[in-house]
Amino acid sequence: MKIDIGNALADVASPGVSRAALDRLDDRVEACHDRIERGRRDDEFGYAALNLPETTDPEAITEAVDPVAGAEYVLVVGIGGSALGAATLAEALGDSRVLTLDNVDPREVSEVLSLLPLDETVLNVVSRSGTTAETLANFLVARAAFEEADVDWTDRTVVTTGDSGPLRDLADDHDLPALRVPDGVPGRFSALSSVGLVPLAVRGHDIAPILDGARDAADLSGSLYETPGYAYGAVAYALDARGAAVNAMLPYAESLDSFGEWFAQLWAESLGKDGLGQLPARALGATDQHSQLQRYRAGPANTLVTFVRPRERTSLPIPETDVDDLAYLGGTGMDDLIDAEFEATEASLAAANRPSVRVELDRVDGRGIGELLYTMEVACVLAGELYGVETFTQPAVEWGKNATRGLIGESNEESAAVAEKTRLVVE
Amino acid sequence: MKIDIGNALADVASPGVSRAALDRLDDRVEACHDRIERGRRDDEFGYAALNLPETTDPEAITEAVDPVAGAEYVLVVGIGGSALGAATLAEALGDSRVLTLDNVDPREVSEVLSLLPLDETVLNVVSRSGTTAETLANFLVARAAFEEADVDWTDRTVVTTGDSGPLRDLADDHDLPALRVPDGVPGRFSALSSVGLVPLAVRGHDIAPILDGARDAADLSGSLYETPGYAYGAVAYALDARGAAVNAMLPYAESLDSFGEWFAQLWAESLGKDGLGQLPARALGATDQHSQLQRYRAGPANTLVTFVRPRERTSLPIPETDVDDLAYLGGTGMDDLIDAEFEATEASLAAANRPSVRVELDRVDGRGIGELLYTMEVACVLAGELYGVETFTQPAVEWGKNATRGLIGESNEESAAVAEKTRLVVE
Repeated sequence: MKIDIGNALADVASPGVSRAALDRLDDRVEACHDRIERGRRDDEFGYAALNLPETTDPEAITEAVDPVAGAEYVLVVGIGGSALGAATLAEALGDSRVLTLDNVDPREVSEVLSLLPLDETVLNVVSRSGTTAETLANFLVARAAFEEADVDWTDRTVVTTGDSGPLRDLADDHDLPALRVPDGVPGRFSALSSVGLVPLAVRGHDIAPILDGARDAADLSGSLYETPGYAYGAVAYALDARGAAVNAMLPYAESLDSFGEWFAQLWAESLGKDGLGQLPARALGATDQHSQLQRYRAGPANTLVTFVRPRERTSLPIPETDVDDLAYLGGTGMDDLIDAEFEATEASLAAANRPSVRVELDRVDGRGIGELLYTMEVACVLAGELYGVETFTQPAVEWGKNATRGLIGESNEESAAVAEKTRLVVE
Repeated sequence: MKIDIGNALADVASPGVSRAALDRLDDRVEACHDRIERGRRDDEFGYAALNLPETTDPEAITEAVDPVAGAEYVLVVGIGGSALGAATLAEALGDSRVLTLDNVDPREVSEVLSLLPLDETVLNVVSRSGTTAETLANFLVARAAFEEADVDWTDRTVVTTGDSGPLRDLADDHDLPALRVPDGVPGRFSALSSVGLVPLAVRGHDIAPILDGARDAADLSGSLYETPGYAYGAVAYALDARGAAVNAMLPYAESLDSFGEWFAQLWAESLGKDGLGQLPARALGATDQHSQLQRYRAGPANTLVTFVRPRERTSLPIPETDVDDLAYLGGTGMDDLIDAEFEATEASLAAANRPSVRVELDRVDGRGIGELLYTMEVACVLAGELYGVETFTQPAVEWGKNATRGLIGESNEESAAVAEKTRLVVE
């Protein structure tokens, strides 16, 4: 993992951070590092996530899912952190047969369940509490679809949940393979645990390299100049303080599209509190050069662009053409073209004094994605310390959950407030 | 189409706009409306896009693609505005067999071409100039894949391009069905023309309802209180001026996920210039309640959340359960659940004094999506007038295009600048 913060320096960009300010910030990083290391040592809530490369046992997961291993399809029923980790890992491994039900859209859910061959599909239901409304609604509907299709769902369901709750009871009642969500690990930090890894193990992937990659990044030093995750977290924080209220995540690889979504959850839910935190915006290179680049380069100077790319790619030659205007493309590779676009776009922002950071992984594979996810978690935990927020909670979503419950079931204070909406309708 | 701006008013939200300020802004809207109507009358560059519901002839498109109509798959080879319109329309129509090659990722391109049954696939190559690097590279690679598979690509290729250029020549040489990109319509405003409609016609869809829906929204009056698109554009502009630098597009329907991407291009590339313009952030309800909502509700008050939902949905009953904690779900429908989450989330933002706008369409179908796209185009053109920017150009992307060309072919000023990158690498 290489993180290049050169284009976020004040001599290149505005907003940008000076070397002197970074040096001063590094003293704070050292203090935050001590806090983080203490949290890891004591397996404190949240900090425990940074121990997952050591505490997750890939063999135990592989063994536990053995009864259903090798399935043609896995349908992950979960939402937020209970779905995004698996989706991100599967995409990085090039596996398009790990699907998710992570919304309660009736049209989508019906379509997914009608298109999947259920007798070749394993359900992985994921919820720590076992009471997440969307997840349980989807599970109830999916179970009914299995019954309708005369497929025994108890032969094809794996549960990932806490020590107690409705899903734990269900697993006990039906003798289902059941994995524990580890203690002290919030959903958005759980990709490197059973939560993210079970679907891949069911599909027959070797999950050990993912944890190996994470372990490569887990030896943290107390300086931003030595630890890539700290470099990224510190620079994002410093740029936000100087006006970069938006963090646009721009991976140059289709196989990192879900990673962008995973990152957006990590960043928004961990840091978006007390009036603080960058707005994470998802994008994808090279495509979004034809969509978002105009705004990044010429709109308000409030955006840090985070470029991510693999240093190695599959090669794919572009055939020669006799069209003059396009002759420059012929004989080169599509890998060279996307890399040229990457460097050109990065330079185009620097030439317009807009800040960016470059994150490079060796390649998009198990080891690479493990290292990338872990590094970004480190960055997020450090940024949380620097902002001084409670990184590992998400209190602002409770109001809406209560209101939903009140609208569907018994009315409560929040659901009563829904009816009082101020309206000004134009039609 | 109903647009409710009640939750963007100053008595609800901060930032918010007062009724008095809106009334004053409405005078400017009237002047902008006159400018827009003049542009439409004279078919001026850009404004001509708002005439597409009248100038696009669905029967002519259907006839032109007749030789390849009814194909099992359509592969759209285009990027930016040459791909997003078709992807948005196909998703809204529930057609998952319109695929796009809209990136130059070698791993992805190889995979798509190896998985598709090429003898049942029609290629639609889309580029006004016929020289877009990514599109032509993908076309050259796709054509080679057809040849490799012994499938005659000249029988299965439709071209959408300008009056001259390499793609026009190609169509002439091989007698391919070729459709004209209409004059005066920038790519991001071209969904309602041949650019967006050809792939659907090839798949056998009736494209007339899409244009009918757009026409429903095309009769503009000079007041934001009477024209939904003006209401949305004016409120977004007014809120940006008061601190809402981010516009988070949050549709509550999986079938509008691509619409979010289409909107992000429209908003970013049209308005992100001269240091102005909101940052469009893509999200999806209900899923992102478990990801972005914490930040929207408790992070910096710099975000307008735009809710979009269909008033009618497929119904899908949730089976009863004997689990106490979940009993409230049983017997209700998934459609009721997602609608309750929509209203609860909207109210939760209002309760925290965060601004939002609600956009409602009747349902997600051809007519509904046509009306929605047209309304958002009207909003964008109005906002461009209010900001005083050149809505229909995208000058900031040229630097990077030149640099890419220089990196791959003959070196030039921009590509030379790429080599001078400032580095500060942490690994």
